[in-house]
Amino acid sequence: MSQSRQLYEGKAKILYSTDDPTVLLSEFKDDATAFNAAKRGQIPRKGEINCTISTRLFEQLEALGVPTHWIDSPSPRQMRVKAVEIIPLEVVVRNLAAGSLCRQTGLALGTPIRPPLVEFFYKNDDLGDPLLTGDRLRLLNVATAEEVEQLRQMALTINGHLQMVFDRCDITLVDFKLEFGKLADGSIVLADEISPDTCRLWDRLDEDRERRILDKDRFRQDLGNVEEAYEQVLARILERV
Amino acid sequence: MSQSRQLYEGKAKILYSTDDPTVLLSEFKDDATAFNAAKRGQIPRKGEINCTISTRLFEQLEALGVPTHWIDSPSPRQMRVKAVEIIPLEVVVRNLAAGSLCRQTGLALGTPIRPPLVEFFYKNDDLGDPLLTGDRLRLLNVATAEEVEQLRQMALTINGHLQMVFDRCDITLVDFKLEFGKLADGSIVLADEISPDTCRLWDRLDEDRERRILDKDRFRQDLGNVEEAYEQVLARILERV
Repeated sequence: MSQSRQLYEGKAKILYSTDDPTVLLSEFKDDATAFNAAKRGQIPRKGEINCTISTRLFEQLEALGVPTHWIDSPSPRQMRVKAVEIIPLEVVVRNLAAGSLCRQTGLALGTPIRPPLVEFFYKNDDLGDPLLTGDRLRLLNVATAEEVEQLRQMALTINGHLQMVFDRCDITLVDFKLEFGKLADGSIVLADEISPDTCRLWDRLDEDRERRILDKDRFRQDLGNVEEAYEQVLARILERV
Repeated sequence: MSQSRQLYEGKAKILYSTDDPTVLLSEFKDDATAFNAAKRGQIPRKGEINCTISTRLFEQLEALGVPTHWIDSPSPRQMRVKAVEIIPLEVVVRNLAAGSLCRQTGLALGTPIRPPLVEFFYKNDDLGDPLLTGDRLRLLNVATAEEVEQLRQMALTINGHLQMVFDRCDITLVDFKLEFGKLADGSIVLADEISPDTCRLWDRLDEDRERRILDKDRFRQDLGNVEEAYEQVLARILERV
């Protein structure tokens, strides 16, 4: 496999073409951004950690019947993935209230949400990734009503599987963001990554409201020990999953 | 009727109690605010103009079978209204894209929206009146699913009636915000006001993109001739409705 050409550089990953037009190589970077890239930095080893965590989680999900873009991981920070057309939606699943949900509704941090909430944000940096209502989803025509319903169901299924995984790690899956893509035949697969960059993860072994945070909120809120938190998530997943 | 006691002062109106506990007196102010009161000013005669426009429109809606809080208008800037418990939602109906819808979706100003969009915002200044999805509406429990559906239907009915009214005035009803309240028996009535403060209104007799604006956007965007625009809306309604 030759890394022929860089196709796209995002905030956290670079995509390269391969000899096979249906296969891309995704390389995870150490760059960290937050607040729509208003805050920028580096987290040492993040690319490798997130690629390894995502690999393990994609493997698990595939084994449980969830189709993903993941093929294999030829090196610690590289993943071979199926070429997809990304659906421009960030699909967020929430088990506990945090982040923008708290800021926008006044719900207290950590309020349990039963059943879990599946929310759709328009993946558009210029617009600041705004929340979409069902009507706005239809109006913008980024996905059909059937596709939106399929995304919602896939997101809830993935939530169930990930909750099991993180339970085994003594970690609470607070919320997470998924992206999906379409294969050439139109079928939808989970894409992007699942990592402390895209999940809120709280350590159940430490109830301190700051120390328990094992995800990108450490970077967003300048809490320190960012790399250590990411390493902790990786270590528990490698040990227990 | 004695104006016994000031109960509440809002950004645009003051509510007084009356001898009858089921009746309040609403007095319209000349104060103008925008962007969650970050911008403040006065529009001469606004209180009187908006009260007179609202009176005419509430009368029309009542005649067409839409229940409102309006009883009568004892003076040009005063309205007697039924005492209601305000439902903390701003119900927005959109016939053409404008305002936050354009900013948040990238839709071009003036894009026709068919069927009209009914959107719900959480009436909460501290949170900045955020947009609510169907799920967030249920989560916050500000109205039951049945009430939300009733609000949506009432908003669409009112939109149909108001479009007829403004058609007669050669004015395009771009979008507008409604508030609803509950009477003691739990029934829902239209409350607040309907005026150039709460509607986007474009003059069909002037196609200039700035001059056609006959609503609070003149104040928001510092376009000048704010009072003249409000007077124009009033004059056409008094003449033609």
